[in-house]
Amino acid sequence: MRAVLLKDFKSDHLVVEDIPMPALRPGHVLIKMAAASINPSDLVFLRNQYGVAKKLPVVPGFEGSGTVVSAAAGWYGRWLVGKRVACKAPEDGNGTWAEYVATEAKCVIPLKREVTLEQGAALVVNPLTAYLLLRMAKDAGHQAFIQTAAASALGRMIERLSRRWGLHSINIVRRREHVELLKKDGAIHVLDTSQEGWPDQLKVLADRFKVGIAFDAVGGILSAQVADALTKGGRVVNYGALGGENCQMSPRSLIFEDKHLDGFWLSAWIKKRHPLRNIRMILECQNMLGAELRTEIQARLPLEKVHEALALYKAKRSVGKVILIPQEELKQ
Amino acid sequence: MRAVLLKDFKSDHLVVEDIPMPALRPGHVLIKMAAASINPSDLVFLRNQYGVAKKLPVVPGFEGSGTVVSAAAGWYGRWLVGKRVACKAPEDGNGTWAEYVATEAKCVIPLKREVTLEQGAALVVNPLTAYLLLRMAKDAGHQAFIQTAAASALGRMIERLSRRWGLHSINIVRRREHVELLKKDGAIHVLDTSQEGWPDQLKVLADRFKVGIAFDAVGGILSAQVADALTKGGRVVNYGALGGENCQMSPRSLIFEDKHLDGFWLSAWIKKRHPLRNIRMILECQNMLGAELRTEIQARLPLEKVHEALALYKAKRSVGKVILIPQEELKQ
Repeated sequence: MRAVLLKDFKSDHLVVEDIPMPALRPGHVLIKMAAASINPSDLVFLRNQYGVAKKLPVVPGFEGSGTVVSAAAGWYGRWLVGKRVACKAPEDGNGTWAEYVATEAKCVIPLKREVTLEQGAALVVNPLTAYLLLRMAKDAGHQAFIQTAAASALGRMIERLSRRWGLHSINIVRRREHVELLKKDGAIHVLDTSQEGWPDQLKVLADRFKVGIAFDAVGGILSAQVADALTKGGRVVNYGALGGENCQMSPRSLIFEDKHLDGFWLSAWIKKRHPLRNIRMILECQNMLGAELRTEIQARLPLEKVHEALALYKAKRSVGKVILIPQEELKQ
Repeated sequence: MRAVLLKDFKSDHLVVEDIPMPALRPGHVLIKMAAASINPSDLVFLRNQYGVAKKLPVVPGFEGSGTVVSAAAGWYGRWLVGKRVACKAPEDGNGTWAEYVATEAKCVIPLKREVTLEQGAALVVNPLTAYLLLRMAKDAGHQAFIQTAAASALGRMIERLSRRWGLHSINIVRRREHVELLKKDGAIHVLDTSQEGWPDQLKVLADRFKVGIAFDAVGGILSAQVADALTKGGRVVNYGALGGENCQMSPRSLIFEDKHLDGFWLSAWIKKRHPLRNIRMILECQNMLGAELRTEIQARLPLEKVHEALALYKAKRSVGKVILIPQEELKQ
């Protein structure tokens, strides 16, 4: 089968090669891939900065969609055969940027009829993260939040879902066109860090809504600026490092204002929650895939063009996802 | 009475002047000051970066010792009259760098006979902070910790107290002579950030003792380096900003290693705890003032030399505290 292979972290050495079909281990199913998305976490993985290190060479890609073609698993796995599914790559093996992937049956989600394979290719990472971050805010009694990188695919999902759930969102972006993008979506409060005076505006808004939580995917000084705006006892939850720098917090906010800096990792959260709660979440998220949790797609490219796909995604992330289409017949 | 007065934050304008004796409000006692210490928190206050802003002009100084000369308080306040005491300045008024201070009776601690007025002048801020930080570590089940600024007066108290309480300490300092200082005190693990390779040594030690908590008084990149060495789920508790920079944490440690950054403020902690627990703590700390919680004193200067005292303290903090001696008769 054709697959993208990462051969070496240091040189970011990606090639497309023929490799053997995956062997089906007990508990696993084999999926013929229809689409696989590129996420910020893939870029982190390609730089060898991800939370789980895999042995090289390895096929990258954390999620995708396709059709289950065989199973070496129990009743659930056998029931999946022939079904259109979304899947998460196994933690210890080849990922989704290939014509086939083998993964544990429990990492596979049957898609509802109304969900396209393309939307299904981006079901796991972004929608579940948006859902869980907002759930965290709601469960802690927050009625408003600040978020950075609000124009990213995930940021936009968070913003749309927050309106459905009745939370006020204060959105931080770094370009004027991102402000338009979010406002067109329906967002009310959008601040642009390329404009002077935005920290004061942030403070006014944060005070008005008594904001006690912020979701940060950028890091650097922005984490500290966001923390400064929160009410006493506030929490910054970091889930990404788009800025490439360490998160900052002022000692003043930590010591005198009892503020906190924590992180969020989808994999860890899903494992901590009860499986039934996760199933309910996945059903709820699928229902919103056409609406609040929809993914804008800017390009569909075959595996052979993985370098082009990555370059496109890195250059214009806010335009939409770039999807890899592994199967020849789906490329037309 | 003579007092140091801060007239303006911007120019750090300190003068020594005659001001009226404090009026005794209900619940307060009047103390004739014998000694008042200079702490890092005073320097923060003089830069207008402290957690509680006071109206100017104001007498600085958060703690000191002396003799209670009158009381407008209940039985406890009246019982204090004539007694040698340590005291904390009121939150909303003049501090301890003066010949007299008026403060709430509940902020006043009678000194045991064996405690000198000089040691009593540094009873509140450092010993209680050392006690509470280590208590926090012990109560959370930690058997080891990392601390930065380990050669400061407070850092040395933390180190000595940790041996009494059976905790392993890994101490980080920034000069070779600080290593000697701590080792002479009995510390076992001392790392010097001016020497190459210390982060690797820190990692080895932290792994050996499975260290899950760090106390940081420096900030900047050092917070992130210390966090990186902790076990998964570890916590950095910041209680100072000696480096003058924001604390840093790598997104990797926050997201994938579930690490946390929090702050510690003595005033907030004391208010949160049950008063009886605080009394027990103060008695325990007094018993250790001659030993684990002793304060090294490098100089005693009259109020008139407050600028010299501050310069001396800023230049060589690890040599010991600088004490202001407000009363003429005690200067000889």
